[in-house]
Amino acid sequence: MVTERHARFVASTPGSIGNLGPGLDVVGCAIAGLRDEVVAEWWDAPGVTVLDPGHADLPRAATRHAAAIASAAVSFAAGRHGVVAPAPGIALTVRKGLPLSGGQGGSAASAVAGAVATNALYGDVLDVNAVLECCLVAEAKVAARHLDNIAPALFGGITLIRCIDPIDIIRLPVPAKLRIILVHPAQRLSTSMARRALPKLVPLSDVTHQLAQVGAMIAACYTNDVGLLGRAIDDRIAEPARAPMIPGFMEAKRAAMAAGALGASISGAGPTAFALSDDADVAQRIARAMSEAYSVLGIECTATVTEVDVEGTTVRRL
Amino acid sequence: MVTERHARFVASTPGSIGNLGPGLDVVGCAIAGLRDEVVAEWWDAPGVTVLDPGHADLPRAATRHAAAIASAAVSFAAGRHGVVAPAPGIALTVRKGLPLSGGQGGSAASAVAGAVATNALYGDVLDVNAVLECCLVAEAKVAARHLDNIAPALFGGITLIRCIDPIDIIRLPVPAKLRIILVHPAQRLSTSMARRALPKLVPLSDVTHQLAQVGAMIAACYTNDVGLLGRAIDDRIAEPARAPMIPGFMEAKRAAMAAGALGASISGAGPTAFALSDDADVAQRIARAMSEAYSVLGIECTATVTEVDVEGTTVRRL
Repeated sequence: MVTERHARFVASTPGSIGNLGPGLDVVGCAIAGLRDEVVAEWWDAPGVTVLDPGHADLPRAATRHAAAIASAAVSFAAGRHGVVAPAPGIALTVRKGLPLSGGQGGSAASAVAGAVATNALYGDVLDVNAVLECCLVAEAKVAARHLDNIAPALFGGITLIRCIDPIDIIRLPVPAKLRIILVHPAQRLSTSMARRALPKLVPLSDVTHQLAQVGAMIAACYTNDVGLLGRAIDDRIAEPARAPMIPGFMEAKRAAMAAGALGASISGAGPTAFALSDDADVAQRIARAMSEAYSVLGIECTATVTEVDVEGTTVRRL
Repeated sequence: MVTERHARFVASTPGSIGNLGPGLDVVGCAIAGLRDEVVAEWWDAPGVTVLDPGHADLPRAATRHAAAIASAAVSFAAGRHGVVAPAPGIALTVRKGLPLSGGQGGSAASAVAGAVATNALYGDVLDVNAVLECCLVAEAKVAARHLDNIAPALFGGITLIRCIDPIDIIRLPVPAKLRIILVHPAQRLSTSMARRALPKLVPLSDVTHQLAQVGAMIAACYTNDVGLLGRAIDDRIAEPARAPMIPGFMEAKRAAMAAGALGASISGAGPTAFALSDDADVAQRIARAMSEAYSVLGIECTATVTEVDVEGTTVRRL
């Protein structure tokens, strides 16, 4: 395996909606638009050096930044493949496009970009599941041990995580007309707080309801049925638990549905809200309605109409 | 609407696996082989008369037999459509092919056959969702208010029930090579007892696991992937609760998996067990292995290798 001392790679990774509707921890969707980028290069200091964490509020400590944790995991795994690094360490420069604590898969995107750029330095010695394992180490540290943001961030599209141990991921077809409205209020919601709000025990009737909705969401992807996808966005577990922590969410959701959204819920752990449509004009109307709902409450927000990112993570040599 | 005084119709309905694997209350699958039949004819006595309940242990009382309850619901609904019956009542003759309390959808099959034969007497005035509503009345009375046996019994194939109020059913593609091994031990398990055994509250980690498995099962149907379907048959809610009530089940399941089954679980509320394969020869081997497992424990059983029934309920004039 040849690794070049002066190689530098940049990986670019989309954001994602985790916990897509009823698919708590198991269904995620990559979102076209904002991206995190990570440049990886060999470095003389041992271990991982974070040259730029990408945001003033992100840690420079390599043990606490998602990109660096994933990068270190890749280095460790590459070493077990017998690859000899041409330098004592790796340096990362993170360009943070996604919002912090926004529920748009920002930590997962940084982890994936860090892992993929680092793997490129090592001549892509790790296969895709090994890369996912490295990202999972980072996500488990900064959020929770799940792949519903990681997998779409890497592959693009909509993914179902059947199992993380061993990794078993199903990449779903993306309904052609699907438009996604993302509304990000000027709030931050800590992922760990949002996770603690989840119920530890769920009533059986809510479980069977949720099982049916996840099944329907998967069927909707295969049958290109955005209407069914919207009807299936009916989450009785995470949304009721987290909505009270997100001022304005319920008002924005009601406004979205009244404006013609086929479904709406919280993106990831929140506070970003999403809504679905199969029509570009209606999607614009929904975005305006959701913005107004926040505005009436005195909450600033950014609303964008976008679609599923199908490219996933890209990497190129600098 | 013309209804003929001397018309007689017979409806024939397959059995089904309800609660297919992780799909508690929401995924069901029609099974080729044994069927229930119901003959419906106009009758001079008012209401529904059960001429033959189909089995010595089934009630003759029209308010307690699934076929009669569904038939009465159809008559009531037809009346609301303005159809005037040519006689004061309807008589049903039930031919019971499916086992009682077997977990093979016997009560649902009788309800569907009773509803469809009666609807035929009324010139098929009720649409399919109205027929399903009538069957649901019967199933709610004799089992529980769910459609996961009713829907496949009516349509054939594998069905996902997204919602019962209003009814929203997704008919799934059937994987081509899917073979089903059904093993019916000489036991009866009351559906109501089996239902009471279910947990009222489910730990969140089991919920997310189950969500992923149901999603994967649906994906497997659309991608014709029997291996994935088998991996997704991993039920952490109903099977662990009901297995202790079914002597020999765990041994039979282990024997099935050792013999090459791709997945195995309890059919409906049990005691029937099912296993999946994508190979006819392996399926025979699995059937023998499961039979032997019961035999070693001194439990008699009937093992059959079959497949998904894609015909559903048929009706013809006698």
